[in-house]
Amino acid sequence: MTLESIRYRAGSLQILNQLLLPHQTTYEEIRSVQDAYEAIKSMKVRGAPAIAIVGCLSLAVELRVGAGGDDPVTFIRESLCHLTSARPTAVNMGRAARELMEFAENESMEKNSEQLRESVISWIEDMLERDVNDNKKIGNYGAQHILSGVPRDSVTILTHCNTGSLATAGYGTALGVVRSLHTLGRLKRVYCTETRPYNQGSRLTAYEAVAEGIPATLITDSMAALTMREMNITAVVVGADRVVANGDTANKVGTYQLAISAKHHGIPFYVAAPSTSCDLSLESGRDIIIEVRPPEELTSINGIPIAAPGIEVWNPAFDVTPHQLITGGIITELGVFLPSELQAALTGRLTAL
Amino acid sequence: MTLESIRYRAGSLQILNQLLLPHQTTYEEIRSVQDAYEAIKSMKVRGAPAIAIVGCLSLAVELRVGAGGDDPVTFIRESLCHLTSARPTAVNMGRAARELMEFAENESMEKNSEQLRESVISWIEDMLERDVNDNKKIGNYGAQHILSGVPRDSVTILTHCNTGSLATAGYGTALGVVRSLHTLGRLKRVYCTETRPYNQGSRLTAYEAVAEGIPATLITDSMAALTMREMNITAVVVGADRVVANGDTANKVGTYQLAISAKHHGIPFYVAAPSTSCDLSLESGRDIIIEVRPPEELTSINGIPIAAPGIEVWNPAFDVTPHQLITGGIITELGVFLPSELQAALTGRLTAL
Repeated sequence: MTLESIRYRAGSLQILNQLLLPHQTTYEEIRSVQDAYEAIKSMKVRGAPAIAIVGCLSLAVELRVGAGGDDPVTFIRESLCHLTSARPTAVNMGRAARELMEFAENESMEKNSEQLRESVISWIEDMLERDVNDNKKIGNYGAQHILSGVPRDSVTILTHCNTGSLATAGYGTALGVVRSLHTLGRLKRVYCTETRPYNQGSRLTAYEAVAEGIPATLITDSMAALTMREMNITAVVVGADRVVANGDTANKVGTYQLAISAKHHGIPFYVAAPSTSCDLSLESGRDIIIEVRPPEELTSINGIPIAAPGIEVWNPAFDVTPHQLITGGIITELGVFLPSELQAALTGRLTAL
Repeated sequence: MTLESIRYRAGSLQILNQLLLPHQTTYEEIRSVQDAYEAIKSMKVRGAPAIAIVGCLSLAVELRVGAGGDDPVTFIRESLCHLTSARPTAVNMGRAARELMEFAENESMEKNSEQLRESVISWIEDMLERDVNDNKKIGNYGAQHILSGVPRDSVTILTHCNTGSLATAGYGTALGVVRSLHTLGRLKRVYCTETRPYNQGSRLTAYEAVAEGIPATLITDSMAALTMREMNITAVVVGADRVVANGDTANKVGTYQLAISAKHHGIPFYVAAPSTSCDLSLESGRDIIIEVRPPEELTSINGIPIAAPGIEVWNPAFDVTPHQLITGGIITELGVFLPSELQAALTGRLTAL
């Protein structure tokens, strides 16, 4: 089976509510930009690529029924601005917003409101298709790069958070690489970290692995270094919320720690991300704003308290891994690049942010 | 207030059920060696020093009412053997068992059964008192050593798991160092990791900190490296289940990863442990048997499933930190030693295991 996290047909959008996984598989109708904003904010949908796609598709749903009336450009601008504010760290929504806005403004010079709505809807639908295709390319490039170091053996991968079908329009980024290795018959096993505090690893990555018969073992985040030492890990592969010009990468909190441990053990560390997650406008990771989320994510689970009442909490959702620790490379749909090669490889292919 | 995890009066033993913390403060009567075995196995009581103390005190309770009859030595031997098997990684119970057995055998040459029971009970009661005193010495030595590097400033400590009053007979080892720093007015803040999968940090360390007004912030295990980079951590201080001759240290899983991150950031890494946690009979950490615990500890919390059904799990309870990463030193009741100094410092002071 292939997991479908986003169900879109012209005029209709449903998302799999990831807060209820793995126990309930419930799709929710997204009828408006506001519905999408709330779903993103509350993490019913998460993963940088998926956030951008659901955000834009919700706009397409509203445009299909004539939203914006005689001034669709203003409606589109305000909607995109609102969507971008839901979660600040991921770059994809911001990039999609700028590209789509530029497209809409150009189109509006020659087209009437109805025609403009049609072209914007087409642009968004293309984006959905492109994301899946890009992920498959990421999967293939990543798998080939990892296998080039181990010509005959099957490989063992360690990954973090969820970067699969549930984080993208389909297939996945880091988990797409794992999928490709599995399809090639070369995956021995993937170790997935629980990924506290939101448990995307134990809830979502484990769910995808079980559903598709990918051999997988769940560990706590604290067991990663021990797993590297004991389990003959071939490579660590993670996703990204934002990769900046020098290769510094913001991703789910814990990624930095994994990269330090991978370096200590001499294990190659890869970031898998579509070029739309790359932000060449920022020179280094120091410039990335890190989202700090509510304490309750650590102190309760499904509403049940699990920590001592009254304890203070720090809950940063992301961390920045410096490019020096990304020793395997950055896997994009254009190929695998060293952090130092990234800027040149992407320049001219990405619109400025 | 001071937390009391073990309540002992001649003939009566109660333990605070740590599985119910922080939500319920419930003391349970331990009437027999078998009660203690079950409490240790199920982790109602945990922490290497506390396990040994509760185990021995349960024996004292039985001896007080004449257990062993005319052959107390056999009863004592069988009881200690059973208690030692409850959790294999911590060394303290095994050491106490051997020391106590040797003592009992010597005493049995000159004393009748009743006198023997009395002397063994005294030996065990002394052990309880010694543990608290040793912990206070550990706290002072550790605090002075850390402060010697920062003559005027207050310090920020990162710790893991629970090593406080709840893990010992009182005061604590690594958390004892934190307590001492706080008492001296030199503790700015302690960051405590959640410590998955059993959440000893969020349940127990946080509980102790809130109860005693120690400024503390809870983080997930995956945030430790980021905390080291962002929060100006002065030192990392952890406990130990077993320190072997070369200084390699078995402790709660995640310790190894913290030590790697501390080294990466140039932050001194300390192990705080009574000499009774040191096992000079093993040359290196490779010889330590690591307890692997049930998958359910990762896949459910308070009986509620939190992971995808069907996922495989690896759940090692401990890991071994190589001595090269213990850059601050090993804090014992005899002083602070570099791993390379430990064997010489303890030789002659410890009975052979």
